[in-house]
Formats: sequence, C-alpha cells, structure tokens
Amino acid sequence: MRLSQTFIKTLREAPKDETAKNGALLTRAGYIHKEMAGVYDYLPLGLRVLNNIENIIRDELNKLGCEEVLMSALQNPEPWEKTGRFSDQEVDIWFKTELSAGGELGLAPTHEEPIIEMVKKYVSSYKDLPFAVYQFQNKFRNELRAKSGILRGREFLMKDLYSFHTTEADLDRFYAEVEGAYERIYERVGLGDCTYETFASGGIFSKFSHEYQTELPVGEDTIYYNENHSLVLNKEVFEDDILAEFKVKKEDFKETNGAEVGNIFKLMFKYSEPLELKYADEDNSTKTVYMGCYGIGVSRLMGVIAEKYSDDKGLIWPESVAPFKYYLVGIGEKGLAKVEELYQGRENEILFDDRDARPGEKFADSELMGIPYRIVVSDKTLTSDSAEVTNRLTGETALVKLAELFK
Amino acid sequence: MRLSQTFIKTLREAPKDETAKNGALLTRAGYIHKEMAGVYDYLPLGLRVLNNIENIIRDELNKLGCEEVLMSALQNPEPWEKTGRFSDQEVDIWFKTELSAGGELGLAPTHEEPIIEMVKKYVSSYKDLPFAVYQFQNKFRNELRAKSGILRGREFLMKDLYSFHTTEADLDRFYAEVEGAYERIYERVGLGDCTYETFASGGIFSKFSHEYQTELPVGEDTIYYNENHSLVLNKEVFEDDILAEFKVKKEDFKETNGAEVGNIFKLMFKYSEPLELKYADEDNSTKTVYMGCYGIGVSRLMGVIAEKYSDDKGLIWPESVAPFKYYLVGIGEKGLAKVEELYQGRENEILFDDRDARPGEKFADSELMGIPYRIVVSDKTLTSDSAEVTNRLTGETALVKLAELFK
Repeated sequence: MRLSQTFIKTLREAPKDETAKNGALLTRAGYIHKEMAGVYDYLPLGLRVLNNIENIIRDELNKLGCEEVLMSALQNPEPWEKTGRFSDQEVDIWFKTELSAGGELGLAPTHEEPIIEMVKKYVSSYKDLPFAVYQFQNKFRNELRAKSGILRGREFLMKDLYSFHTTEADLDRFYAEVEGAYERIYERVGLGDCTYETFASGGIFSKFSHEYQTELPVGEDTIYYNENHSLVLNKEVFEDDILAEFKVKKEDFKETNGAEVGNIFKLMFKYSEPLELKYADEDNSTKTVYMGCYGIGVSRLMGVIAEKYSDDKGLIWPESVAPFKYYLVGIGEKGLAKVEELYQGRENEILFDDRDARPGEKFADSELMGIPYRIVVSDKTLTSDSAEVTNRLTGETALVKLAELFK
Repeated sequence: MRLSQTFIKTLREAPKDETAKNGALLTRAGYIHKEMAGVYDYLPLGLRVLNNIENIIRDELNKLGCEEVLMSALQNPEPWEKTGRFSDQEVDIWFKTELSAGGELGLAPTHEEPIIEMVKKYVSSYKDLPFAVYQFQNKFRNELRAKSGILRGREFLMKDLYSFHTTEADLDRFYAEVEGAYERIYERVGLGDCTYETFASGGIFSKFSHEYQTELPVGEDTIYYNENHSLVLNKEVFEDDILAEFKVKKEDFKETNGAEVGNIFKLMFKYSEPLELKYADEDNSTKTVYMGCYGIGVSRLMGVIAEKYSDDKGLIWPESVAPFKYYLVGIGEKGLAKVEELYQGRENEILFDDRDARPGEKFADSELMGIPYRIVVSDKTLTSDSAEVTNRLTGETALVKLAELFK
C-alpha cells in the first residue's frame, strides 16, 4: 500500500476522552476511529490486523473440523425467554429495540440460544453428532462503562464456537482439542508467553470453566499464579477449599492483573435442556445433547496485543498480525528510484512511504504504526547494493544486500 | 468438504411462512436459516457464496484504489440530527435503542453521516483528496414487511462505497469508473445479461441517480426498457417530460419487473455541507467536499442469483459464486475408492458426498444444492478410466478421462 494513496494519516493527538493506551495508540497510528465509548470503526490498517487475527483463529478451528456460519444480530426473544436470559434482571447488558411491525427484539450479546434453535433443524439422530459450529460476528453489550479502548466494547467482533455431543466423554475430548487450538492461537498472535489457561468459576453444571488470561497491568481481572505458572486461578475461585483441592498453599501464589482473551465452557445441558435440543440414540431413546462453548474476543485480542507490544514511540506488531511486514523508505535520487522498483509486486507486504515528506517524519510514523521491519534505501546504502533494515521490536539495524532483502 | 462431516442437510420442506422462492430454495438446500422475517443466518454453504460475491466486489473496488474499512452499527444521533435523518418522520426504517448509561442510539441503515465524521479527521487540504472508502457491513432497516427472503432484509450485508472529491469533474470521473466496476461485478457473478443501469430519481442535487436493476418477475421495482435495453428507466422517472429529454417515445418501451441490485448516486454537497466536510483549496479558500455513494446489497445479490438461476430441481449457481465447483459421488467398490483419492488436496473445490446413501438421493441433493459440475465415478466409468461429468446448468453429461477431470 502506498501511503500517498491512502486517506489515513497518523494523528498528533488521540481524542481527549481516550484514556486507554490501546485506544490512544491505535487512534494516533490511524488504525481505529472512535464512534463513541466502546464503539470503534476499523480503518484500513486496523481492518488488516483484525483480518490477520481472524485468519489465524479460522485456520486453527478449521483444523479441528469446525464449520463456519454467520448468525444475525437481531434476536427474537422467544428462545431467550425459555432459558430465562431475555430478562434485563438476568442479563443486564441487552440492547433492545422494537420491530415497526410490532414486537420487542434484542441485539445478540452471545449466541447460545439462536444457535441451538438453528441446529435443531439438523439434529435428530446420534448419527448427526458430534459437530462444532463457529462464527466471527459482532456482539452487542450495553456496558454501563466502556473506557478501555477496544478491550471492552459495546459492539465488538467475537469468535464464538459451539460444540454438540452425545456423551460427556466426547465433549471432554473436543474440549481438550480446543484447548490445544487456543494455545496455538495465542502463540501465533504473539501472546504465547504471557497468556495462561486460568481456572474460573463454572456455574451450575461444571465446577470450573477455563479462561485465557493475558498478564496485563490494565487487565480487568485479578489472577493468582504459582511459580512456574503451572496453576493460574481467577480471584473468584482463589479460595481455601479450592486451593486445598489442588493441594497447593495460598502463600505460593502471586497476584497480578489479567485481560481475559478467551474462555471455554462445558455447558453440558445448561441451554440444550430448556431449549429441548434432543436426539434419538442407538437404542431409540430420546436424549439431550451435550454442549460446549468457546469464545475469543477478536477485537479485544487486537487491543491486548497493542497494549502489550508498544513503547513510547508507538505500536510494535508481531509479524503474524502486522498489517504489513515492511515499511519502505527511499532517500536520495537513486534511493527513491530503487524503492519504486522494490515495491513492485509486493503491494500486499509493504507499506510504502512514498509521501513527499522528510525521512525523520517517515521514521517516526513507521515506529508509531509499528510495522515489524523498516527498510531504508538511500544513495549511500546503494553503494554497497544494500538497504538498511531496522527491527521495530529489537531496534537492531543491519545492512542487508538487496538480493537478500525479502528472504 | 465432506458431506458426512457437516451438520447441514437438505430439508424436504421450507418453513411454511417462507413464500419467496429464493428463501425457500436456499433453506431447503441448506444455505440459510430464517431467524425471523427479513433476518437470516448463513450456514456453511451460504457463507461461502456470500464470501465469493464479496471477494468479486472487493477485487473490482480495489482495482479502482478504493480502501476498505469497517464501521460500527451502533450510531450516535448527533451527525444524523445535523442532516435531519435521525427523525423517524424523515427516515422511517430506524431500529433505535438506548444506552444503559443514558442516551438514544440508532442501528445504521446506511453510513453517510458516520463516514463523513470519520474522514473529517483526515481531510484538511486539497492534497488529501480524492479518495474512496468502502466496507462490507450489516445494515439494519426496520421494514414493516419482509416477505422476499434475502431479497429484502431487516438485517443484511451491504457493500457501501463513498467517494470524496474537490471538483464535480473529478466526481464524474470516479463515478464513471464505478459504473465500469459495477458492470464487471454483475458480469462476474453471472447477472451481466439481465442487469441494466437504470435511470432513477436523483433527489435535490442531481436530476438522476442510477440503479442497477436485474430483470426478475418478483422484483419490487417497475422498470421500462427500449428494444435493445440501451435506455432503461425506473417507473418514478418514466414521465413524458423526461422521455422528451431523452428524445424517445413512451410506446417504444416495455414494462417489466426489476430487482435493484445496486445504486450509485452523486451526492454532491447533500451531506458534506450540513456536516461541514471542508478542505483548504490551493488558494487557501475553504471549500466543501463533493461526494458520491455507491451501494450493492451483497445478500440481496445472492438472493437474486438464487431466483434467477434455479429450476424445479433446485439451485444452479454460476461457477464464480458457487460454494464448491464440483459435487463428487462414488458408486461401487472401485468407484468409492477412487473418489477418496480424487478428493485429496481438493477439499476447497469439491463437495464430496461421502455419505452412506443411495446414488439417487445424492444426485437429487447435488441438483438441489446447485453445484455446477457433478462428477460420478463408478466401477463402470472406471473401465474407461473416466468419470461421468454432468453440467447442472445445461444438464449435459459427458464421460471425461480422469487425467483431464479438473482441467
């Protein structure tokens, strides 16, 4: 992409009400635009990051045989009333609206109920199970406060996966597969080292659920970890009787803040029972489907990466999610001619700063935007057929032969 | 994709309230699921079609240098109040909702106002213009009636493109480029022969706007066309004074029904004036930005293709938008072994009917699902190292050597 051709620019200042680091940095670097608290637009660079994260998640879920669908935001109250979740007393983050033809609707904060209604059309026999369905879809949550940039949205992109099984053992098997996939996802987006599977409270049907918590100073959760992080607990389950169960002592744990970047949950019959998602088993008896659900906040994940990988100069994207791998700058007559040549055919890898601006300004923008590798070609570097390559993360600079540049 | 592994199946019957052909066929074939009138979920095959259409549109717009963004559905009333469009008297299809923190919000039925507010951050000088920004985003429209399947949605996927210019001449130039892109888009999705650029009423600032109308019996618009379709007019402008302007006679036109699959509009200053989208010109004078907007209903387009390309056996997807190019069936011991082999490495092209079912059932499903080419490998076809390939559109069947199969 040529910077001279895009409408976005880096901004000197973030909006005054943007107190979160991720929101401020992503706004200044031209990735997002704030509509209102908790509601953001994704500009070309931001959308590329979101798509990169989405594609990593999609790839890992497809490997498990999960199938992608796309559900609606508008929700009929009926199935939600059956599970008791349409009531504002039970679920206090609904956005509700009215059909002009009459009748109240809600904007989906999650999708257990409609996905059950949908799969009911396709499940009748044990032969139809197991399977797993996911989507990337905007959720709406009427949060009272939303001051955390894209870490907590009133409208945000979520990957939600739902699995359907005949036995608890089969749910356990798939749940373990998702644990593996999640580990690989956090590893691939650059958060492997600081993201921990964390025990959290499980609700009615399971003792525990699992959250994935990224250690982060501005994280909203309080988590406790032991020395090698082999056991991490959310505050809500950091209690004497539970610690006794794990045969560990309170004093061996340290407290820190975590941002929840995913959660996985054995729903068992929690929603399939009231919504009567049943099947005929081999012996023709009618049984209820076991369910699991598995979420990752995609836009939140982007915010966590922005919080985690940044310094006083700006963002530092891991290569796997960066909107472009290279930031290209030419200096001097020959340098400017050479970068035009290098750019050809690499429009999708290179953010080409072909603007009529001072090199210093371009360097500052490359740092603010957080592109992994800055390539500078000047008349001077060309005397040795080379370019100067700077690693945004380490700050290291090296002269690299042009022939070796994109290897 | 293996049919034995997916949760979807073809259904014998569409929901009783599904009166539209596209809705009924797409439901029976396992492409969509109805949440409520005008609100649909996209199942794996349906999402693939939607993505294929989206990618064709994206490709053509990127060629024009348009930049992709993603705006929010939740809307602050403020900019809409400035253009007078938040009022239910002016725009009667709003879904409105309330922030729990206080304040009314709307769900965007279109995006002129927020996109202007967003680009204002980036436009100050004539040097920042022209540019064009688009998105694929769900629109919400509180239609009183929605009985046309995915042809008219209360929540539907739209591509909306907005362009920004310093002069009317530059808007005209870009408008003509979009006309070219739209022609190629309709051609590529298989509607080139029956889709016409149609004059429609232009509103305050322009005499005419253009719609793209696909001739369709269930289309909601009435259009008039001359013999070679060189001039097509929407009913709203099929009036004596306008016909006189074009120097044509009423009696040379025939009436038919059209489904609007796109519209393009020279907005001029309609929204940029009230929202004060200004720039400093070369002489430093402050001027208002010229705007154009250009829409394509992506899910509607899918519905129109389904209406247009179908027969009493089911859907007939054009290759360019089909979820899979081939439907693969094996018959007999050797045939079943051979299709397993043929499927390897072609998971993305082939819908593999590996279910334990009768060939007749598989053939009927391949027709209902509308996959362009059905490949049948049986012990008999293997005696000549061949497969039987049937073209869903023409019904023609040919024996094709296995070595030539995917060429």
